Amino acid sequence: MKKSLLALAVLGAFAGAASAQSSLTVFGIVDLSVNNVKNGTVSQKFMGSNQLNSNRLGFRGTEDLGGGMNASFWIEGGMSNDDGTPGGLNFQRRSTVSLSGGFGEVRLGRDYVNTFSNVASFDAYGANGFGNFSNIYATAPAGMGAGATTAVRANNMVGYFLPGKLGGLYGSVQMSAGENVAGNKYTGFRLGYAAGPVDVAAAMSQTDVGNPNKYKVFNVGASYNMGFAKILAQYDQRKFGVLKYTSYQLSTNVPLGQGEFRASFAKGNAEGGLTKNNDATLLGLEYIYNLSKRTALYTQYGRLNNKGTSAISLGGSVTGAGTGFTSTGYGAGVRHIF
Amino acid sequence: MKKSLLALAVLGAFAGAASAQSSLTVFGIVDLSVNNVKNGTVSQKFMGSNQLNSNRLGFRGTEDLGGGMNASFWIEGGMSNDDGTPGGLNFQRRSTVSLSGGFGEVRLGRDYVNTFSNVASFDAYGANGFGNFSNIYATAPAGMGAGATTAVRANNMVGYFLPGKLGGLYGSVQMSAGENVAGNKYTGFRLGYAAGPVDVAAAMSQTDVGNPNKYKVFNVGASYNMGFAKILAQYDQRKFGVLKYTSYQLSTNVPLGQGEFRASFAKGNAEGGLTKNNDATLLGLEYIYNLSKRTALYTQYGRLNNKGTSAISLGGSVTGAGTGFTSTGYGAGVRHIF
Amino acid sequence: MKKSLLALAVLGAFAGAASAQSSLTVFGIVDLSVNNVKNGTVSQKFMGSNQLNSNRLGFRGTEDLGGGMNASFWIEGGMSNDDGTPGGLNFQRRSTVSLSGGFGEVRLGRDYVNTFSNVASFDAYGANGFGNFSNIYATAPAGMGAGATTAVRANNMVGYFLPGKLGGLYGSVQMSAGENVAGNKYTGFRLGYAAGPVDVAAAMSQTDVGNPNKYKVFNVGASYNMGFAKILAQYDQRKFGVLKYTSYQLSTNVPLGQGEFRASFAKGNAEGGLTKNNDATLLGLEYIYNLSKRTALYTQYGRLNNKGTSAISLGGSVTGAGTGFTSTGYGAGVRHIF
Repeated sequence: MKKSLLALAVLGAFAGAASAQSSLTVFGIVDLSVNNVKNGTVSQKFMGSNQLNSNRLGFRGTEDLGGGMNASFWIEGGMSNDDGTPGGLNFQRRSTVSLSGGFGEVRLGRDYVNTFSNVASFDAYGANGFGNFSNIYATAPAGMGAGATTAVRANNMVGYFLPGKLGGLYGSVQMSAGENVAGNKYTGFRLGYAAGPVDVAAAMSQTDVGNPNKYKVFNVGASYNMGFAKILAQYDQRKFGVLKYTSYQLSTNVPLGQGEFRASFAKGNAEGGLTKNNDATLLGLEYIYNLSKRTALYTQYGRLNNKGTSAISLGGSVTGAGTGFTSTGYGAGVRHIF
Repeated sequence: MKKSLLALAVLGAFAGAASAQSSLTVFGIVDLSVNNVKNGTVSQKFMGSNQLNSNRLGFRGTEDLGGGMNASFWIEGGMSNDDGTPGGLNFQRRSTVSLSGGFGEVRLGRDYVNTFSNVASFDAYGANGFGNFSNIYATAPAGMGAGATTAVRANNMVGYFLPGKLGGLYGSVQMSAGENVAGNKYTGFRLGYAAGPVDVAAAMSQTDVGNPNKYKVFNVGASYNMGFAKILAQYDQRKFGVLKYTSYQLSTNVPLGQGEFRASFAKGNAEGGLTKNNDATLLGLEYIYNLSKRTALYTQYGRLNNKGTSAISLGGSVTGAGTGFTSTGYGAGVRHIF
Repeated sequence: MKKSLLALAVLGAFAGAASAQSSLTVFGIVDLSVNNVKNGTVSQKFMGSNQLNSNRLGFRGTEDLGGGMNASFWIEGGMSNDDGTPGGLNFQRRSTVSLSGGFGEVRLGRDYVNTFSNVASFDAYGANGFGNFSNIYATAPAGMGAGATTAVRANNMVGYFLPGKLGGLYGSVQMSAGENVAGNKYTGFRLGYAAGPVDVAAAMSQTDVGNPNKYKVFNVGASYNMGFAKILAQYDQRKFGVLKYTSYQLSTNVPLGQGEFRASFAKGNAEGGLTKNNDATLLGLEYIYNLSKRTALYTQYGRLNNKGTSAISLGGSVTGAGTGFTSTGYGAGVRHIF
């Protein structure tokens, strides 16, 4: 269900804008799960609030301006529903205003960056849960792009998105002024092609972290939907001066009646500087049973092997786990979309 | 009024879930009052935002999954409407996702704990205002269960609630993993019986505060509705090592046309350790005039006598009041539910 | 569009309140703009989120109590949509509950103070953007009413507003108890007259900042609507012991088809104590093009000349700008009301 409130408002006062159809949608996701993670010999139980989807509360709407033009807004905040979000509701998941039409969309505000949108779209899990690719690439070696606040989203962005009907081509350019804060200044673009069962896209970005070296991200992914299963593959590369971290992921979605099975394998390779050989591999499994389009039960398993000084955990506390440990996690939960 | 948005959404994509009726409700309470509290010789005026009911803003919804099953969510945050909630809107009043059916309800997230739900249900005031019982039992002597965060609600809870149709029997079990935070680890249960004019229930809980001693709460209450008046009585006991605090409350609701009169007497007894004899008694009076089902005017009075080192205040500042003082308060306000 | 959810609820349970028509409105504004400000020789680009209107998310509703009486609530929080409001959603823009009828309105909670409401209503820009009057009067010399938290809004207020039908007369009285916090204790009133093209009003307030000197504000404004243009003029005076700051503004709104042109000139005079002659002047220009009643494109320009130790900036960083500089700003944005 979308709680769209449709209103047909005749705005007689505007000669050039005879009528405007508008909607406001209040929406969100509550996803809670019971999990256990063991890092080396240390294990911890925890309630997770982002294991299948990221919890959120949002308000969005679109106004038909006539002549094929639309004005839209979207404000969406994260929630930690296991404890009620200490720290307060922000709209830091997304906070944008847009004008769109035949020319595409101009979008201002805080939003996902191109390089994150790209990597999430070629991961069978999106970007949530034990098996998801960000457990590898987002935990790159210390010092890698330190200070960048643009790994997932950026503030103050001006973005342009290609219109929908370009024969399968899609893409966007995004820029964010730094506003005198190191790590905020972002430039990125994304270009893709989707038609029938095929989807392929690449993205590239650069963030100024107040260092002669820029933090540079490049990734490329592809997916093919065979009907009985979708297979996805992607490669990600992050550079910062002499530091370099590359990773790849292979994953699959297999529909099973009202359910779905997901599996993945990912590997991260520390290639540059002192961090060389501090690699990590990740195996993930998940089964989702859809009680309806909006409500799902799910269970998941992940096993992450760290090498050298790599110390990636699938969640919970790592106190006493040191480095080079194996992190295994399992859990089960319920996800409800409203 | 409840702002329920009903939507009958035919989800054709799901073979096993032919249709789903759903609702989203935006709801809340704004309650503001002008009050004066005198602690010993010190008096202060203040605007209260929780004197008849606790102010809140919430979003809740239920999805009919078919076959008698429902999925529900409930996110609700407190507000201090006298100053606009500095600190930000959290959903710390309640933040849950549920699956329910003939078997009862499984509820995950942050919620009231059993021992609080029980004590509030046998208090003529609920848990708000000068006369309410929590002014006595919740201000137990220093050191009593110090560090427990589970007096009213607990994070990360898994709860099970009995179904509604058990011939008057009701009850629940709740458990919360500590997640390595002392004071969060909670186990509790509640069992009651309500039929016709009678309601009686008991609850018991234990919180691990990272101390060999556990913080243990037990309470039992009963109410009888005589039609022209409802009478309520309850007893509460809190233990922590050698420390013990017991209290009881007698209260009544008397409907008077469109209005309601409430009166109460409560006493707290410090029984264990050095805190012995630091008792307190509380007399409360309240009159509510309902302008509608949702909007009420009210006026209240409370008088709390502290003994020994007891220093409970009905509100406002206690700077300079010392201990063993008498706290008297009166106020008037308006409460609006949306 | 207003997303009003109308509900006609027959409340059979109340003899004296046969029916109640109620509404809940979820509303807001998202306004984002790209701006450049140059302070002396230092310039900065920034994305603004309050340049045409202040961004907000709110919930408000009114219940018809019968007999001409209404109960209302209004909770409204600010948003910084350029970055998603770090700090969390508060309802600090407005947080009130009201009872209104033929006698006028009694309003409790956090709200605009009289002296701010008055000054904003005689400014062609309201209180947003480079040309708006608050850039002058709100940046009074250091020490001027230091500690007062009542420049724009006050907490804990009890307000009374005259009813609408008094032959053009309007006005209000507001009082806020200090609640032992210096700078919170406010008393103010406002009285105005509006009929046909004429509107004139004055307001006066005093805030106790825990100093023998009170912070005193007085302002008076008038506007005349000639049809092809509206002209506005106002004068503001702030006193604190020997310190005195006076300012005036002349501004105009000129409707141009679907658009609107705004221009202003303002001057601030530091008159008392050591701050004498640290004056400032401000020239502002703005053009708004309304794509619909709710969505507008706009562009603005401002030039502010500081004298002596005056150091007012139109926005962005002033690091290294010193005092007595000239601040010039220009920008363009889109504003969407929902």
